[in-house]
Amino acid sequence: MKKFLNEAETAIADTLVGLAAAHPALRVDLARKIITRAGGPRKGKVGLVSGGGSGHEPLHGGFVGTGMLDAACPGEVFTSPVPDQILAAATAVSGGAGVVHIVKNYTGDVMNFQMAAELAGDADIQVETVLVNDDVAVKDSTWTAGRRGTGATVFVEKMAGALAERGARLAEVAELGRKVNAASRSFAVALTACTTPAAGKPGFVLPDDEMEVGVGIHGEPGRSREKLGTAKQIAGAALEAILSDHPLAPADSTIVMVNGMGGTPLMELYILFGEVAAILNGKGIRIARNLVGNYITSLDMAGASITVCKADPQMLELWDAPVDTPALRWGV
Amino acid sequence: MKKFLNEAETAIADTLVGLAAAHPALRVDLARKIITRAGGPRKGKVGLVSGGGSGHEPLHGGFVGTGMLDAACPGEVFTSPVPDQILAAATAVSGGAGVVHIVKNYTGDVMNFQMAAELAGDADIQVETVLVNDDVAVKDSTWTAGRRGTGATVFVEKMAGALAERGARLAEVAELGRKVNAASRSFAVALTACTTPAAGKPGFVLPDDEMEVGVGIHGEPGRSREKLGTAKQIAGAALEAILSDHPLAPADSTIVMVNGMGGTPLMELYILFGEVAAILNGKGIRIARNLVGNYITSLDMAGASITVCKADPQMLELWDAPVDTPALRWGV
Repeated sequence: MKKFLNEAETAIADTLVGLAAAHPALRVDLARKIITRAGGPRKGKVGLVSGGGSGHEPLHGGFVGTGMLDAACPGEVFTSPVPDQILAAATAVSGGAGVVHIVKNYTGDVMNFQMAAELAGDADIQVETVLVNDDVAVKDSTWTAGRRGTGATVFVEKMAGALAERGARLAEVAELGRKVNAASRSFAVALTACTTPAAGKPGFVLPDDEMEVGVGIHGEPGRSREKLGTAKQIAGAALEAILSDHPLAPADSTIVMVNGMGGTPLMELYILFGEVAAILNGKGIRIARNLVGNYITSLDMAGASITVCKADPQMLELWDAPVDTPALRWGV
Repeated sequence: MKKFLNEAETAIADTLVGLAAAHPALRVDLARKIITRAGGPRKGKVGLVSGGGSGHEPLHGGFVGTGMLDAACPGEVFTSPVPDQILAAATAVSGGAGVVHIVKNYTGDVMNFQMAAELAGDADIQVETVLVNDDVAVKDSTWTAGRRGTGATVFVEKMAGALAERGARLAEVAELGRKVNAASRSFAVALTACTTPAAGKPGFVLPDDEMEVGVGIHGEPGRSREKLGTAKQIAGAALEAILSDHPLAPADSTIVMVNGMGGTPLMELYILFGEVAAILNGKGIRIARNLVGNYITSLDMAGASITVCKADPQMLELWDAPVDTPALRWGV
C-alpha cells in the first residue's frame, strides 16, 4: 500500500485535523467526528445532516457550508457513522425547525440513521429522511437492499441545502430532496480497485485489459466485467443504462456530473464528459449545468461515474443558488 | 495502460472537446488548440497567456477566466506548445496593453514562448515574460536548466490575473508575477510513476516500499529514492527543503498549497495538509490562505507537492480578489 498516511488506524482522525486546518469556516469536532459550520445553527432553519463511511471525499465534509449541508458525520473508511454520532450532529445543527437526514442507501447507513432519527425524536428534534438510491447498475448488492446511493447525493445535498437556506419548512426540504433523487440516475465504471488503509491491498484485482462495469463506490461488483472500452463506448454504455431506466425526451434539461473516483485524472474525465455531451446533444437533450471532477470518490480507485438529473426550473434555480463549501463554491 | 481514452493520438483534442462542452464561458479553438475567455479581449487590459505540455490539468486551461488567465495553449502531453500556437493565443487576447507570458521553466517551453514573444513583437504586441522556477528539489534536471516551474504557477496566474483584471499596466503585472514567483517554493514526492497515453506504460518503476523524493511534474527524478515515510515525515522533509532555501520568520504570512498529482485521493492530501499546518504553526508561521486539491497534476501519478508562498498584504488581497474559472472560483 502506497499512501500518504501516518497510521492506518488514525487516517480519519488525521484527515479531520487537516480539514479543520484548511477550512476555518468549518467547525470540526475531532472527538465526536462531526463537521459543522463554524457559525452554529440558525434559529428557524431546517438543519441538513449527511454522512456515511469515509473514503468518498469530498463527500460529505467537503459539502458543509452555506447553501448546502449543516453537518457531516464521517464513519471509518467504508463504515457507517454510529447513531450517537449522527444524533450529536443533528443536535448540534438543530435550529428548532427540524433536521433532514440525507442517507445513501447502504444497509449500515440506513439502520444507523434510522436509530439516530428515533433518538432525535425522543429529544424533540423532528427528523425527515431522504434516502438516495440512484445507481441503476444493480438492484441489490453486497452492501445494499435495493439500489445503491451514489452521485445523486451531491445533487440532493446541493439543492435541498439551497432550499433550506431560504427558510423552507422541514417537509418542503425533504420533499425537494426526494424529488431530486427520483429525477437522478447514476452508473459507474472502474479501471482499478481501491485499497483501504486497513486492508493495505486492493479489494479485488482487475486484469490489465478489463474494467468493472456498474461498480459501486466501495469497489463492490457491478453488472459485468468486460474488456476495456473506449471513452465513447463507456459513456454510451453508462448512458444506455441510465436512460433505459429513466427515459428523457428531446428538450429535457439535465444536470450532468462526470465524477472521478479518486485515482482518475481530470483529462480523462473531460474526455468522458465530451462523449456524454455528444450523445445527449445527439438526442436533443440539454445539459443545462454540469460538474466534472472528483465529488464522490472511492479512495484511490481509477474509475468514473456519470450522474444525470432531469432538472425542472425549480431545480436549476436551486442549483444556481449561492454555495460556499470546500468542494462546491459559487455565487459568493 | 488503463485510461478513459478513445485513442492515445486524440487525447488532447478529445479533452478540449470535453472542456468546451463543460464550460460555455470558455472559447476553445480546437483547430489551433487555444483556450480563451468567450468574451474576447478587453480593450486596454493586459492579456495573460500561459501554457505548456498537457497532462497537468486543470493547469492551464482550467485557470482561464475572469480574474486569472486570458488564454491557455496546451501542447501535447508533456510537450511544449509551438510558437505559432502561443502567438495566436497572444493575438487573440491582446487588448492593446501588452501580453504577459507566464512560463514554467522547462527548456522547450522557454524556447517556444521566447520565439512567440519575438513574433508578437514583430506584430506590435508587447510581451513581458514571467518565468516560474519554484521547485527547490533540483538545480538542473533532465527537462530544465535551472529550477523547474511547478506549483507556484498557480499562485502567479491567480495574483497576476487579479492585478491585470483591475487595469494595471504591463510592467506592473509582470513585476507582480515575478514577485510572487520569488516568494514561492515547492517540493514534491511521488509514490507511483505516471503513464502517458503515448507510452502506455509507467515512466519508471518504484518498488512497493519506496518513494521518489523531489520528483518533477513529468515524473523526472528528484533528489533521492527513499523508503516510504509517514505523512508527517514527508511533510517535514518537504518543508525542510523549502524553508532551508527560503527561510520564513515567526509571524510571516503564507499561502500554502497541498496539491495532488492526479492519482492521490483528497483524504491523503488533507492528512498531509494537517501535518504541514502543524509544522508551520509550530514555528509561528501563519497559513493565511490555502488550497488542498488537484491543481497541477502529472496525469495519474500518485504523489503530492507542497508550495509555500510568503505573502505580503498586496498578495493576500490579490489572492482574495474574485476569480471565475473552471478550477478556481470565488467572489463571484
